[in-house]
Amino acid sequence: MKIIGEKINGTRKLVGKAIAERDAAFIQNLAKKQVEAGAHWLDVNAGTHPDREADDLKWLIDLVQAVTDVPLCLDSANPAALRAAMPAVRRTPMINSISGETARLQGVLPIVAEHGCEVVALCMDDKGIPTTAEARLDVIRRVFAATRQAGVPDEKVYVDPLAMTIATNIQAGPIIFGAMRAIKAEFPKAHLSCGLSNVSFGLPVRALINRTFLVLALDAGMDTAIIDPNDRDLQAAILAAELVLGRDRHCLGYTRAYRAGRLGELPKPAEPQKA
Amino acid sequence: MKIIGEKINGTRKLVGKAIAERDAAFIQNLAKKQVEAGAHWLDVNAGTHPDREADDLKWLIDLVQAVTDVPLCLDSANPAALRAAMPAVRRTPMINSISGETARLQGVLPIVAEHGCEVVALCMDDKGIPTTAEARLDVIRRVFAATRQAGVPDEKVYVDPLAMTIATNIQAGPIIFGAMRAIKAEFPKAHLSCGLSNVSFGLPVRALINRTFLVLALDAGMDTAIIDPNDRDLQAAILAAELVLGRDRHCLGYTRAYRAGRLGELPKPAEPQKA
Repeated sequence: MKIIGEKINGTRKLVGKAIAERDAAFIQNLAKKQVEAGAHWLDVNAGTHPDREADDLKWLIDLVQAVTDVPLCLDSANPAALRAAMPAVRRTPMINSISGETARLQGVLPIVAEHGCEVVALCMDDKGIPTTAEARLDVIRRVFAATRQAGVPDEKVYVDPLAMTIATNIQAGPIIFGAMRAIKAEFPKAHLSCGLSNVSFGLPVRALINRTFLVLALDAGMDTAIIDPNDRDLQAAILAAELVLGRDRHCLGYTRAYRAGRLGELPKPAEPQKA
Repeated sequence: MKIIGEKINGTRKLVGKAIAERDAAFIQNLAKKQVEAGAHWLDVNAGTHPDREADDLKWLIDLVQAVTDVPLCLDSANPAALRAAMPAVRRTPMINSISGETARLQGVLPIVAEHGCEVVALCMDDKGIPTTAEARLDVIRRVFAATRQAGVPDEKVYVDPLAMTIATNIQAGPIIFGAMRAIKAEFPKAHLSCGLSNVSFGLPVRALINRTFLVLALDAGMDTAIIDPNDRDLQAAILAAELVLGRDRHCLGYTRAYRAGRLGELPKPAEPQKA
């Protein structure tokens, strides 16, 4: 599975503060730690200030590229900010995201097509997020009609079926896994991605739910996730799932991670000596 | 999911010793702890001494029934021991196990049929454990032919497709999940059970692999497992999987377990005071 590192996101309080205060060390540390933990892309989100977004995004891109060669995932729905950022990006970035929403198809998709980007496609349209797997498939069919029309090949599209909150709909899991299987069957060259944070909203011990969701989503065909690559338990769950699902040839990924100290209990600090 | 508590098993060193020394308190403690942790049956295995098995099994049954009303799962392939034990059992027990092996079909199945027991059925025959999902289905078809012939209804049969070791066959997981789905499709009234210990044999951090296997097996239709009900992380994985798979109405199982302190980090012991 491939990982989009989610941490450099200006809608998070500490990151927003670091952007506002131009705290370069804070941002670069987030970039380096995520790459060391195995991120394949780094999501870069400059936050929600339309008047500042282009400048902030450009500042983030320059900073991150100064410490890593990992490709970026430009996280913005603002075509002006994306267009302004594009010349600063060294490797063709992923764009996060388009959807069935008219504004995104008209504003963001042309940038994706023009630059040959990979792109995250959300299963929603101007009417919101459909509640059934079938309705999501209808939305994503219209998105693929548009990407194909624009000349974007299916293998550059990362469909995010948009997991909903289990606390308000106990069928949220089966709906999303059903949508994943249906999308994979109909668009076999496309990728399946997913964010985790909504799934466990409002429930206790969210990390446990997120891990379990990810294991089951891997079985349903997900091949990419927007997560915190420094989450040790989540990475361990991914390694174990790929092993149990028969995708880890000779168990090499799992056993190497073990030898690198990335699985199992962290060594405990030494016991204080008794007097 | 329903749980068969696996701990009272004379092939385990400490339990074998307790049986040999007639350490009643040790056995009864194992019984009580498993029931408190939610076991639906208690497996009772007297070990592998054919000359002593009937006596030892009877001793275990009396002991366990003195501290709990949970039904037992008599774990023996020895028809003489099972027949000797049956009059001591208060509630109709599950029998663990039959298989496609001639000796078990001729020796154990008649006891199951005569007493109206539930029964674990292993996917193996006199030639051993088949390596493909299809060959396992062939074996289990012959077992169902025999159980139906004997008058045992499918809903009393708990098929264990016998998970193999991932370390020696990376396809062990997909083979077993495929077998589970195929068995469930062909015998929809039957249950699916599984032991976990083989799956992770020879690999590090086995508990992580076992948990992940269990989550994926639940999705493949497993409804019963022979496990240690006192394994906190494993129980948490089951609760989270039932939640994510849409089987925990109103999230009640999960949230109640949380309030009972059965999810999340255990409270840490207080830090020693600094002088």
